[in-house]
Formats: sequence, C-alpha cells, structure tokens
Amino acid sequence: MQRTIFTEDHDAFRDSVRQFIAKEITPNLPEWEAQGFIPRDFYKKTAEIGINGLQVPEEYGGGGIDSFLFNTVVYEEIGYAAASLGGFQVHLNTVLPYFLEYCNDEQRRRWFPSFADGGLVSAIAMTEPGIGSDLAGVTTTAAVRDGDDYVLNGNKTFITGGINADLVIVVARTSKDPENRRKGLSLLVVEGDMAGFIRGRNLHKIGMKSSDTAELTFDNVRVPVRNLLGAEGAAFGMLAHNLPQERLSIAITGIATATAAVNLAIDYAKERQVFGKPLADFQNTKFVLAECSTEIQAGQALIDQALIALDAGTLTPADAARVKLFCTEVQARVIDKCLQVHGGYGYMSEYPIARLYADARVTRIFGGTSEVMKSVISKSMGL
Amino acid sequence: MQRTIFTEDHDAFRDSVRQFIAKEITPNLPEWEAQGFIPRDFYKKTAEIGINGLQVPEEYGGGGIDSFLFNTVVYEEIGYAAASLGGFQVHLNTVLPYFLEYCNDEQRRRWFPSFADGGLVSAIAMTEPGIGSDLAGVTTTAAVRDGDDYVLNGNKTFITGGINADLVIVVARTSKDPENRRKGLSLLVVEGDMAGFIRGRNLHKIGMKSSDTAELTFDNVRVPVRNLLGAEGAAFGMLAHNLPQERLSIAITGIATATAAVNLAIDYAKERQVFGKPLADFQNTKFVLAECSTEIQAGQALIDQALIALDAGTLTPADAARVKLFCTEVQARVIDKCLQVHGGYGYMSEYPIARLYADARVTRIFGGTSEVMKSVISKSMGL
Amino acid sequence: MQRTIFTEDHDAFRDSVRQFIAKEITPNLPEWEAQGFIPRDFYKKTAEIGINGLQVPEEYGGGGIDSFLFNTVVYEEIGYAAASLGGFQVHLNTVLPYFLEYCNDEQRRRWFPSFADGGLVSAIAMTEPGIGSDLAGVTTTAAVRDGDDYVLNGNKTFITGGINADLVIVVARTSKDPENRRKGLSLLVVEGDMAGFIRGRNLHKIGMKSSDTAELTFDNVRVPVRNLLGAEGAAFGMLAHNLPQERLSIAITGIATATAAVNLAIDYAKERQVFGKPLADFQNTKFVLAECSTEIQAGQALIDQALIALDAGTLTPADAARVKLFCTEVQARVIDKCLQVHGGYGYMSEYPIARLYADARVTRIFGGTSEVMKSVISKSMGL
Amino acid sequence: MQRTIFTEDHDAFRDSVRQFIAKEITPNLPEWEAQGFIPRDFYKKTAEIGINGLQVPEEYGGGGIDSFLFNTVVYEEIGYAAASLGGFQVHLNTVLPYFLEYCNDEQRRRWFPSFADGGLVSAIAMTEPGIGSDLAGVTTTAAVRDGDDYVLNGNKTFITGGINADLVIVVARTSKDPENRRKGLSLLVVEGDMAGFIRGRNLHKIGMKSSDTAELTFDNVRVPVRNLLGAEGAAFGMLAHNLPQERLSIAITGIATATAAVNLAIDYAKERQVFGKPLADFQNTKFVLAECSTEIQAGQALIDQALIALDAGTLTPADAARVKLFCTEVQARVIDKCLQVHGGYGYMSEYPIARLYADARVTRIFGGTSEVMKSVISKSMGL
Repeated sequence: MQRTIFTEDHDAFRDSVRQFIAKEITPNLPEWEAQGFIPRDFYKKTAEIGINGLQVPEEYGGGGIDSFLFNTVVYEEIGYAAASLGGFQVHLNTVLPYFLEYCNDEQRRRWFPSFADGGLVSAIAMTEPGIGSDLAGVTTTAAVRDGDDYVLNGNKTFITGGINADLVIVVARTSKDPENRRKGLSLLVVEGDMAGFIRGRNLHKIGMKSSDTAELTFDNVRVPVRNLLGAEGAAFGMLAHNLPQERLSIAITGIATATAAVNLAIDYAKERQVFGKPLADFQNTKFVLAECSTEIQAGQALIDQALIALDAGTLTPADAARVKLFCTEVQARVIDKCLQVHGGYGYMSEYPIARLYADARVTRIFGGTSEVMKSVISKSMGL
Repeated sequence: MQRTIFTEDHDAFRDSVRQFIAKEITPNLPEWEAQGFIPRDFYKKTAEIGINGLQVPEEYGGGGIDSFLFNTVVYEEIGYAAASLGGFQVHLNTVLPYFLEYCNDEQRRRWFPSFADGGLVSAIAMTEPGIGSDLAGVTTTAAVRDGDDYVLNGNKTFITGGINADLVIVVARTSKDPENRRKGLSLLVVEGDMAGFIRGRNLHKIGMKSSDTAELTFDNVRVPVRNLLGAEGAAFGMLAHNLPQERLSIAITGIATATAAVNLAIDYAKERQVFGKPLADFQNTKFVLAECSTEIQAGQALIDQALIALDAGTLTPADAARVKLFCTEVQARVIDKCLQVHGGYGYMSEYPIARLYADARVTRIFGGTSEVMKSVISKSMGL
Repeated sequence: MQRTIFTEDHDAFRDSVRQFIAKEITPNLPEWEAQGFIPRDFYKKTAEIGINGLQVPEEYGGGGIDSFLFNTVVYEEIGYAAASLGGFQVHLNTVLPYFLEYCNDEQRRRWFPSFADGGLVSAIAMTEPGIGSDLAGVTTTAAVRDGDDYVLNGNKTFITGGINADLVIVVARTSKDPENRRKGLSLLVVEGDMAGFIRGRNLHKIGMKSSDTAELTFDNVRVPVRNLLGAEGAAFGMLAHNLPQERLSIAITGIATATAAVNLAIDYAKERQVFGKPLADFQNTKFVLAECSTEIQAGQALIDQALIALDAGTLTPADAARVKLFCTEVQARVIDKCLQVHGGYGYMSEYPIARLYADARVTRIFGGTSEVMKSVISKSMGL
Repeated sequence: MQRTIFTEDHDAFRDSVRQFIAKEITPNLPEWEAQGFIPRDFYKKTAEIGINGLQVPEEYGGGGIDSFLFNTVVYEEIGYAAASLGGFQVHLNTVLPYFLEYCNDEQRRRWFPSFADGGLVSAIAMTEPGIGSDLAGVTTTAAVRDGDDYVLNGNKTFITGGINADLVIVVARTSKDPENRRKGLSLLVVEGDMAGFIRGRNLHKIGMKSSDTAELTFDNVRVPVRNLLGAEGAAFGMLAHNLPQERLSIAITGIATATAAVNLAIDYAKERQVFGKPLADFQNTKFVLAECSTEIQAGQALIDQALIALDAGTLTPADAARVKLFCTEVQARVIDKCLQVHGGYGYMSEYPIARLYADARVTRIFGGTSEVMKSVISKSMGL
C-alpha cells in the first residue's frame, strides 16, 4: 500500500542512505561478521552523510531534526540491504535518545559534538546475569556515593557494543527501597578508560555477528557525579519513557528485513528451475510469498501509524509493545518461509537469507521478550 | 492506537448509529436469526436515520456523501454489536455501489429514491453452481437479446438476500468469445416480480442466520434492455472495479466482530471464577487476549490505510486482497480464541460469541476465497 | 500407516457397525439434528447388534468384553460417517464405565440388563453453572443424608443427554472439608421420574445438534442411599480414574471425524472444476490435504499407542491429556482446512463438512478444556 | 507414553551409547564445531563399542544386526545429548545402507571390514547445483564408459562429509533417455584419492557446524567399473528404495533433539528467577512446555509405528514422508519455543539450545524438503 508518512525530503535522504549502504556496508559486512564488530571508522563515515547526528541539535554539529522519520529511513534501508548492524543501531536509536533527552548543558557540550561527528561509540548496560527483561530487578550493580564520585560495582551481560564503546550508560542501583523495586535506580555514564571497568569476552551468538556483545564488570569504578544522567533515582521512569521508541525501532528493522527476505525469495524463485519450470511458477511458492507480503503490509501499516503517534508524543507503551510483538513475529515467520523457498542454499551462510534468519531470532527477545510485550499489553486492557 | 481517519462528524454519526443498533438490531436479532431473514421494515428504519442512502445523491433523497468513511462507521458499529447482517450489508455495500456508479439518468430516477428511503431490498447474483470465485467462468446463465428484452436463463447460487430482494443484479453471459472468457458478460437488473424468476429454498448455513441465502433460477425471464446496467459486455471490468471496496467491507466487519469478541471475552474472564480466582487473572488468559488485541490492531491499521486509499481512488486490487485476506484470518483466529475463553458457554448459541464464531467461518470464503486473494496478491508481485 | 492393534474379530465387527450406521444413522441424522435429540428407539437398535452392551458382563446380557478396542471401532465408524452422536457416546463411553466399575451386586442386577438391551438412556451431571472444568469446585449441588435418602439440591448445566436420560449420575457434595476441596464429593444416581428433578430447556448449540444438552435442577430430590455409586465421599477419585478413557474417546472421535473431512474434501476436490481444471490438480489443494493427512496420522499413532496402554491399565492422566489435546487440535485444524476446500458449499448445513465443522468446536472444551489438559501435562513434567 | 518397541538388549545398548557420548562427544563437540568437521579418529572409537558396524555382517567384523532399532538408539542418544553429528549420521544411516544392500561379494570383501572397524569415512553425492530435491534432474554429472572405467565429469553440492570422505557414492548419468528422466542414473563409488576428484571449500552453514559440507568436482575421474554399485542405470530405484529409511532417521533425530530442548528448557525454567519467582511457575511457561511435550509424543508415536513398519519391510514412501514432515516441523516449533524460554541466553552459542536451534533449520530441507514430502504424500492420496 502506498505509504503516506514520508515527504520528498525523506525520499531524497533515502536515496543517499541507500547509496551509502551499497558502498560502505554491503561489501564490508562479511568482514565485519567475521571479526565480530563494526569498525569505529564506520561511525565516522555515517557522520559524513549526516546519519549519525540526525537528532543532535545543530549548535553541536548535528542535524537538529525532531522527527523520528529520518531515523526510520536509515533503519529501513539497512534492513532492506539484508543487514542488521545491531551495535550501530543501539548506538543511534537506543543510547543517543537518552543523551538527547537527559543531558544537562555541561554534558551536552561535553558529548554532543562527538555523537554528531561519529567520534563516539556508545552502549547501554541494563541487563544483569539472571534478570532478563525485569529491569526493576537490577540489584547486583550498585553505586555508592563517595564524595564527588559514585563507586560502581557489579556485572552486566548481553551488552551490545560493549566491547568497543567509549561511553556506556549503566543502570545502577543507587539506593534500596524495599517497598518499591522501581525506585533507587540511576543512569551513570561510564567512560571506556575508567579504572576498574572490565570488558569480558565478545560472546558468540547465533547471528547478529557484526555486533559485539559483551559481559561487563565494574570493580570499584569511580564515576564522577557529573556523569549522572538525569536525576538520581529516576532511571526507571527514564527507561520506561524511552522503551516505546526502542521497541518501534526493532519493529522497523523486523519489517524491513522481512521485506528484504521476500525480495530475495522472489528473485531466487524466478531464477531457480525445479522439475522443469521456475520455482516461482508453483502455486505453493506463489501462495507462501503472498502470505508473507500480506503480513508485511500489516506490520508496515502498524508501524506507520505508530510513527505518527511517536512524533505526536502519543505512542503508548502498550501500542509500542503491540507493534514490536507483531512485527518481530512476522519477521520470524516470513524469513523462515523465505529461507525455505531457497532450499539448501538458504542454509549456507554466504546467502543473505541465511544471515537474515540467524539475525532474526533475537528480535523476539531483546528490547523486551514477546512475553513481556504480552504482559504490557494485557495490563493496558485491564487484565 | 489512536485512529486518525475520522472527524467529529463521523463520531457524531457513530453515536447515533450505535443507539440505533442498540434499539433496533440487538433486541431483534434472535428473532431474525430464527426466521432466517431481516424484515423489510428494518430497511425503512435504517433510512430514517440516513444509513441507507448515505451515498445516494441528495437530489434523490440520499445523503450525497462521497466518502466511504460513513459506511465504515455503520459496518463497524454493527460488528461491535456482535451482529453480522449479511443481507443488509450486501444491499448497502455490494449492490448499491453498482447502481451508484453505473445507472444512467433514467435508471437513477427510477431506482435511487427507493434506495434512499429504504423501500428497496437488493441483491447481486454472481456465483453459479460449480464455479465459485471464478467469475469469468459464468456460462450457465445466458441472456439472449430479443427485441427490447433480454431473455434470461440459468441458475445462480449462494445469493445473499435472494429470498427477499426486489431487485437482483444478475451477471449473465450476453455473448461468447472463446478467446476471452472475460468478455461478453453483462449486468441485468431482474425485478422481483418478473415472470420466470424463481427463488429456491432459503439455504441453511453454519451461521449468518439472519441473512437469507438462495438459489435463483431464471426460466425465460424477459428483462427489458433498459434494465441493463452499464454497457453490454462490460460486466467483468465493472465487477473487478467494485471488488476492492466489497473486500474492504468484509475486512472491516471482520475486525469489528473480532473486536467485539475480545470485549466479550474480557468481560467474561473478569466475571468468571476458576479454581478460586477470576479467569482474567491467569497468565494464559492475559496472553491470549493480548495476542488477539495485537492482531486486531494490525488489521485495523491496514484497514485505515486502505480506507484512505479507497477514498483517494488508489486502492489496488492486490492491496484490497491483502486487507481481506489478513483481516478475515485474524477474525477467525481471534474469535476462536475468545470462544475458548468462554469454555462451554461459548458453544451455546444464546451467547453472542457463539454467533460470532458461526458467522465468521464464511468470510474467508465469500467475496473471493483466501486462496483467490493469494492468487491476486502473488500476481501483483510478478509471480 | 498400517495399524497393528486390531484383529480379524475387530475387522468383522467394524463391517457390521459400518453397515448399521449406513442404514440406521446416516439417513436419520438430519431429522435427529432438526429435533435436537436421538430417539430412544435408536438405543434399542444399537443393542440388537451388540454395540450397546459391549462391556456389560455376559450374565446380564452384555458382550462381556474387557478391551476398549471394540468401543473404539464404534466411535471410529460413527466419526468416519461424519456424525457425532454426542448423547449416545456419552451414554456408552462416559456413563456406562462408572456403572461397570462401581456398581455393587444389587445395582448390577438392577441396571445392567437395561444397559445391555438398550432400554436405558443415561447421562452424567458434573459441571455446574460457573465452575467449568474445576470439578473440585462443585459446591452448589449438595446432598444431605436424611434416613435412607440423600436430599439433593442444586443445579447442573451442559448435561449432554439431560433431556431424555432415565438415569443421571450426579456429582454432589455430601460433606464439606474446608481443607480439601476434593473430599466429600459423591456420585448419586438420580432416576428420571424422581420428584423434584427438573429438566431445563434443550440448549441451542453451534453444533452437536443431535445431542440434547440441558440444565438440570434438583429441588429436594430424595435419592435413596442404594442409588449411591461407590463409596460416599469418593467421587473425586472415581472421576479422576475414569477421565483418561473419556478423554481418549474424545480424541478417537476427533481423528475419525478429521479423517472423514479429508475424504469429503478429496472427493469434492476431484469433482469440482475451477478455472478449467479439477480443484484437486492445484498444488495448494494437494499440499493442504497432505498436511491434513500427516497430522491425522500422528494423531492416529498417538491414539493407537494410548489404546494399548489403556487396555494394559497403564494410561496415565497426563498421557491421556496429551492425546486429547493433540487430537482435538488436529481435528479443528483439519476440518477447518477441509471446509475451506469446499468453498461456499462448505458453509451450507446440508453438506456433511459443515456439520463436522460445527460439531468440532466443542471437543477442545468438553471433557476438560485444552487449557486444563495443558495444566495436567505440565504438572506431570514437574512444572 | 511408555514405548513398547525396545527390548532389554536395546536398553543395555542405550546405556553404553549414552556413556560413550558423555565421554567422547559432549566434551569434544565445541572443538569439532570450531574446526568444522569430526575427526577420523572418532569413527574408530564408535567402532570400538560397535556403533559403527551394527548392520555389517558378522563375517566382516560387524554386528550382523538386521533391525534398525539399534541404529535408532544411537541417533536418539546423540539427539538427547543436544548434538547433531550430520557427517557421522550420513555415513552410518544414509551411505552404509547402500553398501549393505547393493555390494557384490567382491565389494563386500573390499569395503565392509573398513566400515566395521571405523577405518572408513563415507559420503553420498546426489544434489547438483540448481536441482535440489529433483533427483531425476541429475544431468550435469555424467559418466561415460571407456574400457573398464567410467569417465566421470560434473559437479555436486551440499555434500555432507564431502571434505573428509574416503569413499563417495556419486549419482551420475550413464545414459540419457529423453522419454524417462529417471532412467540412466547409476551409482559410482569414487575413492578419495582418485585423480580429478576435487573437493571444494567447506561451506559455512547456519548450524550443523561439526559437519563438513562441500562442493565436489569431478574432472575426468576414471572410476573403474568394479566400483559400480548395483546395476547400471538402476540408481533411481535404489535411491527411492533407501529414502524412507533415511527420512525416518532424520525424523528420529528431530524428535530426539526436540526432547533435549524441552529438557534444557525445564532445567532453565526451574533455575531462573523472574519477577521474584522461578520462570517455571508462570502459566505461560507451563503451557508452552506442555504443548512441546505433546507434539513430541505425537512425533514419537509416529516414529515408533514407522520403525515397526520399517523392520517389517512395509514402510511406504508416503508414510516415511509423513513421518519426516511431521517430526521436522515439530522439531522446528519445539526448539524455537524452548529457545524463547531461555531468553537472551538462548541466543548465545555456548548454550546447547542455541546449537539445537541453528542445527534444526536444515532438517526441513535435506533428505527432501517439506514441500517434496507433501508432493509424495498427496500423490499417495490420489491427488
């Protein structure tokens, strides 16, 4: 269906992003996957065409754009290129918004220019070993005020970008309220070279191989108070506020990669001869791809509606949860079916559909599992 | 998600429609279901609040509304009331559009006032025994020109409203082109009292029990040429042109009834105690209803996008097919799950969820089966 | 797959059952469905060919058969004939086993001959309004000992066969133990003509229309103590003991009716021409029916394994729950797909596939819902 | 459900296999996965406990066992250990049966002892680039008789074990019959050191990482006629004959690995605390695992029935196709759900569930895709 949310400006930007991807991402992706991370250099390059600092205010060298639609174009085009740059996307769509919304003036001056010029790689450390999506359960990472510093101790896991990040926002418990688990959490910005900040191995994963994923350990790290993001004890609300946008981003990537999968499957089905005719001529192939295309359209319509709501400031947590739940489930079903169309080739890593399949399995888990989404949704229904 | 397609006018109209339904439909539905048809009287009443002639030009006593959004409100509210007035909806959303678009001036004067004032019940006869959704396969119903009349012979089946209709648009073959099955079909308006027009039994169905469904036989029916709708031989194009709107209407009813089902299930789950606590407190109940709500949102977003396209004249057959396919599949899944929430009560016909279930089974079939939708979609994908 | 559980004796019996069904059930089913119950006369006829008293000891005029395999043959053949004689099947497979296992000698002499000769119609009343599958929650039906009688008061609902039964086993609370809800339940045999035994309406259902389903009210019914089945207070254990066989029976009917649906769909698909060739020639038709056949085979294999276990006395409640859960879900999916193959005809009640569809919806509910099955299974897994 | 196909001999063998796996496979699997193949040494070790030569006649040093049940034990135990030794399983269950059935006496003497003592690694090369499951489409690999040799030319792809095999059975076209594509195919045994036999790269795959998978090229390889297996031109029938057993083996591994996944998920769910209680205490966890366990039971029942048929020589191609289709679909669904139970840990390669997930994706493809299975099944249904 004709999408109605984009203007000519977005279309022009989309063209430049697409060219950038074709030149800078597609040919390098195999190497990044083999080495397990995206080089810092790439961040610089994205800054050159303005991707990186889209939402950074102009006075700090950014694009000063208020709408999320330009970011959407970036995620979509990366997805259409059958890529999932987890580390970069977390930097751009998950971490940066915290800085944009919660930095004080001094922090803005200190950090914004480096976001805008791509000189900075960032990550966010929420999950602890054994707590999963239960943010209020953060207990093992504790920060104790000592003069002008917080002394931070604890462990985090599954930290996308954790191996290479210069700045890591750490969700830490700064005070304990036995009545209210949600109180007493704060966001501290740990710098890469602080003493006692130890990065673990780059964890091996089923897919998302160009993203580094780490366990992080904080051993008496002294984080100056001026690195506190927002108010002390206010982290839970800040996290809750930012989750809808993060979840919407995951949904966007989900539908974009599913779209890529259908396109790959169509191309393959037209080329490939089976029992004497193109695979595309079999009714089963047609029907399967028609189902995929239909589900994608539904996901796309949902996303477009949510994007309007996001820009209007009316996207509810429950609706964002619905969008993430639906779109990542569609992503899983569609990519699985499109891989099947490829037969044995679909299982070979050098085929992009294989990468899409391996990458896709995590989207029903990260940013809140499908089960957490259902809890959020049902709560909003009065259940 | 906040819907953005309606204005205050629609909202006000929606209120009056809702009140009308509560007063005129809900209490009478059991009787209509028992007798197997909607009384003519009801059509009169809908006219009184302007439902019936919404799109009929004002000069003929109608509302003169160009947009499909008011009709949408009507279908939605009927669906939210857990009703499926197949016969009335076919009259309003399937048949009337043919008259609106293809009547010449004389025909407009002759028929429009009775559409506007509810004095008319109409139907359309496409399907023949044994041809299903393959319209180009119409062969057994043939009309031969004889002076100022067509002499019509043949059989039609599954004709919603066929028992009571005053006017029936009949798809008939007026000439045979062995090269092109789609050519040579015409639309003839058969009047209820024409000699040789024989109505068969009111067929028993799984659901949709307030709609009469008939086999019709035409035995040398003399249809005057002035009852030809549009040009002779042009029916296939006219049918193809009107199908997207018809399919969208089915989708709208699908999502509206699914919404009704979720509301019924929530109410039931909150009231009902199981193993000592409300059914609504069980995680499975919450998750199942969250899934339902999510799929409904996706269908709704798809519909709203399609409604904008329909009013703009840009809704493609393939997109309409996607919307119908998706929304009727969602309807089936959601209503099945919501019935299950009701346990044994869900199987009892006096519970509205049981009626929704029985009604729902046909929407994946009529207006073109899900399989036909997939064919239309895959063709548009170049497969 | 070749089944290995039947001997030549079963095969011979199957032939006679099949002939009986073709003569006595198939032609009469439409009438039974219209009137809402199976005539008492039919029970007599089943007795003539030995179906009715299969498991009644020979000394009381029965077949004296210990194995459940002959019953299986009966359920299967009824299902293959696209029929679901709920009332009769409850009589034969749910109620009779209680009498067979728990009658004392006096009761055997009193009741067995009438089971064997088909002179008796029976039912069992477990469910109360508002408690569903939670048997331990029986509270509103209470029996108080008064001399040689129990004085029974309360309501039951969804009682298959309740309109016509001569004997109804009623699950009643004879004493209250606040510590253990499962204690204090007893089985009382209420006779049809006892004073204060009031039968409600024959409830309208989506399907299973040849079965009467009633609400029953007991208003100071004096049930003599000699009508107590088994020991006072022991009902919960007796119910739990008999459930596996009842659930297996539902599974058997599920797979048998699904098999009937596939056969109907194959016949229809071969006959029906669509777009110039038989529907059976379309790859989608082939694949859908292959999927159906595959799921049926899996269900059949599960049933055959369970039947061996049942006869050996080793069928666990969890395994019976798995068999019921799986086979009724297969039944639902398969019959839905086979109806879809029929297009519009599938929705017309005169087509057997429509009856199978309407009948099937209740099997995921009665005998314990799919959700109860999952609870039973997960408990057995240590969860 | 209690399985009934195994005797005490099988149980004892199972114990020894389980111990062997715990000692020789589980600790080494990570290394084998990293290097991309199983060391030859492992084949020797399996021979020591008799796994390797189970079905090799005793006179050649094997176990002389006729039944497939001992092999079943091996596949099951490997699967229960969450391993998929593709290369070894192809050697044992796909390739060896061709040798066992089709070797002449001279070939038996030449090759059997090395199968029995584990000195031999074997593979079979059917698939060609671009033909997939359409065996009759083998055209590019052609063998022309020249004196006492066939001169073999062509390419094969996706050859499991192709990197390390000492013997490769190659399906080659030895004559062309334009009327019958199935005629003229022969099986030639290519030895690893023959001139012109070129092994390509070890292809990277989504999973099955301990199996080497290769493209093979034959450049004027002179294969002596005495290396022809069976009669010239008879390969298609031989392949068709052996496929049921191969497909059954894939199904066995599918259900065994799904079983392993459920066990891993149960352990994880009991250990892991979420929102203050074990994950296992959530109803959703219970229900999901109950569904998994149910589907596994159905698959197991199907397999056990098929194993009896296989040993009796009555397993039809259609039934084997049903078993493979069903069990690999169950495997996919179950392992996906069990990974989801693990949350983020499920995506980390060091967790066995991640390996099971990555391994599982290929079983719906190799040995004939699910689509090919459906074609085989529908053909057997007269469609």
